[in-house]
Amino acid sequence: MKKRVVIVGGGFAGLNAARVLGNKVDIEITLIDRKNYHLFQPLLYQVAMAALGEGDIAAPLRNMLAHFRNITVFKGIVKNIDTVNKIVKTDFSDIPYDYLILGCGVQHHYFGHNEWEEFAPGLKTLAQAKEIRRRVMEAYERAERTTDPVERKKLLTFVIVGGGPTGVELAGSIGEMSRYTLSKFYRNIDPKLTRIFIVEAAPRILGSFSPDLASKATRSLEKLGVQVWTNSMVSDVDADGVQIGNERIEAATVLWAAGVTAIEIGRTMGVETDHIGRIIVAEDLSIPGYPEIFVGGDLACFVTENGKTLPGLAPVALQQGRAIGKNILLDLKTKARKVFRYRDKGQMATIGKNKAIVEFGSLKFDGIFAWFTWLLVHIYFLTSFRHRVFVLLQWGWSYFTFSYGARLIVNREWRFYPDADTCVNHQGKEDEE
Amino acid sequence: MKKRVVIVGGGFAGLNAARVLGNKVDIEITLIDRKNYHLFQPLLYQVAMAALGEGDIAAPLRNMLAHFRNITVFKGIVKNIDTVNKIVKTDFSDIPYDYLILGCGVQHHYFGHNEWEEFAPGLKTLAQAKEIRRRVMEAYERAERTTDPVERKKLLTFVIVGGGPTGVELAGSIGEMSRYTLSKFYRNIDPKLTRIFIVEAAPRILGSFSPDLASKATRSLEKLGVQVWTNSMVSDVDADGVQIGNERIEAATVLWAAGVTAIEIGRTMGVETDHIGRIIVAEDLSIPGYPEIFVGGDLACFVTENGKTLPGLAPVALQQGRAIGKNILLDLKTKARKVFRYRDKGQMATIGKNKAIVEFGSLKFDGIFAWFTWLLVHIYFLTSFRHRVFVLLQWGWSYFTFSYGARLIVNREWRFYPDADTCVNHQGKEDEE
Repeated sequence: MKKRVVIVGGGFAGLNAARVLGNKVDIEITLIDRKNYHLFQPLLYQVAMAALGEGDIAAPLRNMLAHFRNITVFKGIVKNIDTVNKIVKTDFSDIPYDYLILGCGVQHHYFGHNEWEEFAPGLKTLAQAKEIRRRVMEAYERAERTTDPVERKKLLTFVIVGGGPTGVELAGSIGEMSRYTLSKFYRNIDPKLTRIFIVEAAPRILGSFSPDLASKATRSLEKLGVQVWTNSMVSDVDADGVQIGNERIEAATVLWAAGVTAIEIGRTMGVETDHIGRIIVAEDLSIPGYPEIFVGGDLACFVTENGKTLPGLAPVALQQGRAIGKNILLDLKTKARKVFRYRDKGQMATIGKNKAIVEFGSLKFDGIFAWFTWLLVHIYFLTSFRHRVFVLLQWGWSYFTFSYGARLIVNREWRFYPDADTCVNHQGKEDEE
Repeated sequence: MKKRVVIVGGGFAGLNAARVLGNKVDIEITLIDRKNYHLFQPLLYQVAMAALGEGDIAAPLRNMLAHFRNITVFKGIVKNIDTVNKIVKTDFSDIPYDYLILGCGVQHHYFGHNEWEEFAPGLKTLAQAKEIRRRVMEAYERAERTTDPVERKKLLTFVIVGGGPTGVELAGSIGEMSRYTLSKFYRNIDPKLTRIFIVEAAPRILGSFSPDLASKATRSLEKLGVQVWTNSMVSDVDADGVQIGNERIEAATVLWAAGVTAIEIGRTMGVETDHIGRIIVAEDLSIPGYPEIFVGGDLACFVTENGKTLPGLAPVALQQGRAIGKNILLDLKTKARKVFRYRDKGQMATIGKNKAIVEFGSLKFDGIFAWFTWLLVHIYFLTSFRHRVFVLLQWGWSYFTFSYGARLIVNREWRFYPDADTCVNHQGKEDEE
């Protein structure tokens, strides 16, 4: 009797668990994802900034897993999980499991102000990336059109809420695009006058990096015309800008790169979660009390021996996915499961052309060498060979021509969390299809 | 005093008129398009079939025209035209003109059944192309999911209404994709069983081609599993299929490649139009009685000396755009305008890999040589060099790997005529922005 493994979510965790279990005897795998593709999240901001196309950083899960004959992929939505009878309830059928792997990630969190999202889209999905692209390019179009100087100033103002890597990368790209690329395309406006703000509640941006690297990044951002506001808590967001305590910035475009919250699934299952809803997992990445249910990636709250929890990074999800797969194989061989240990791959962020910061343990560096490191690492980890080729080509092209990819405004395609996750999200909203 | 030239529509006609008039002294040009990009229509079906990305066949008009210092591009919608005071009324301001060039094309026509469009999207815009892609790929996803054999059969049935080049190219692509590409990606269905129909009201498909080429194309389509129904008039379209007189085909996906109708602008201007609303133009491409207003491309009804009207093909629009530009220059030199003569570039259609038909005057050929001709011609006419490079690369890749580009289902982004045209379309609908 084959063991039925159900994987929820085709992100880094789910995909890599599937790869470990693929084509193994006596295992039958069902992978369910709300989307039909795996998304290379770390480069999503480049799609938002029109540097890459959606096809460059996403690939259909079917293609990626086609050579594993024991894997069936379904595009569907998980409603909830019957942990007693071991059944995954989806929008198309009930799927029984012997082992369950949850990797359905996180979504943006608006500090209890979900109404802000309409004015400040986050960057977790392709649809959101393209909505951000649409808003940014549309702002320049409207600025070119308007005759009202106040309106124009507002249209040429961009506020990014949150000074983590994503916020920095978005701000840097807008800075670079406005200073170097767009300037020659408009007749009535000077894109060089674009105002860009990063609004960060903490005392400094890039809190996960060392202070010296963070300050170097700040300098690089300033050189691109980005103003960094730290110790600045956003108190309100509306169609015309953001309120920061008594201060206000009038901006037509506000982007959200701040807090995240885990998909509700943990709470609906009634298992122990942390303050942002991540499921607390044991050393073997299973849920305490549910040895047959594993959690990996952003959805998992894994506490390391030094009492810290692992951050929501691609390498973490990737390693956890593999570890989960291996632990299931150990079970089948009736051997003891292995304790998960994260091999730190360091962290990096890119600010602009030839500008990046890399931190790997005690090793820290920035500038063009860091930028090339960033480039090589991301190319290397791009999941399919086809992608590596095309992304390299497009980057090469942009690098030397200083032009960006197609800045097309294809009409609005984004709704609240359109394909944010495979599990029903906290508004319980779904794609209508 | 500079002459103010206003161009409505950045398609082949408008773009090429702009290129002729660009950087000419004493001319000030304003180009208005509802979209911010020029679209290479002939390859749109490849975006619908996921063979190319949107960025491969579209380029921002600003970039394409940036080197013409006397051209200002506005993304906007033309409401109507005050021919008495020579003012173009747009959604953002009124723009006076000395010369007006109309090139805002056609949209799909549902024979008075606009309610059919919801069930059978046409293929005129990028958003429509991506909606078609979404529907086709979604059908396979749902077929893989369902356990009901009747439902599954319906999901694996595709009906293309209209047997012109677009219909043939869509049907051929679906046939090829289902027979060669998708087969290995699904576990519960055999994509090779996909049923594909072309429903054509006329006695044969590809009516504009010679009968022998058309029958060769029909054979090629049949080899790809496409069944061609001629003399078949669609009497109804609904969510579950199409009715053809007493016959009915149950299909989850119906695509519309049949009639087109011109944008309403002609009728609203009160000038003479033909039965599908195209504006009847004089020999010099101006509107009789309005020497300062020119019409080019699909929107123009140009009657040749042999009494025929020119078809809605890219070469026609391209040549008319240039001719309009030249006639305006002749005016400024107070010389007589030239009569427009269409230099026939022939016509071609591709059915699948190594399969195409080419007709150039009396010269007719098909098969792999025709296919390569088709390929070279389209590459050559792709408007920007960057595009040529990337499209060639992707085609080369697909040709040898027999794989398609990213078959991503990004959530629904299509509405009725979302960016169908620069003028308000016949439902008077507009993008909300």
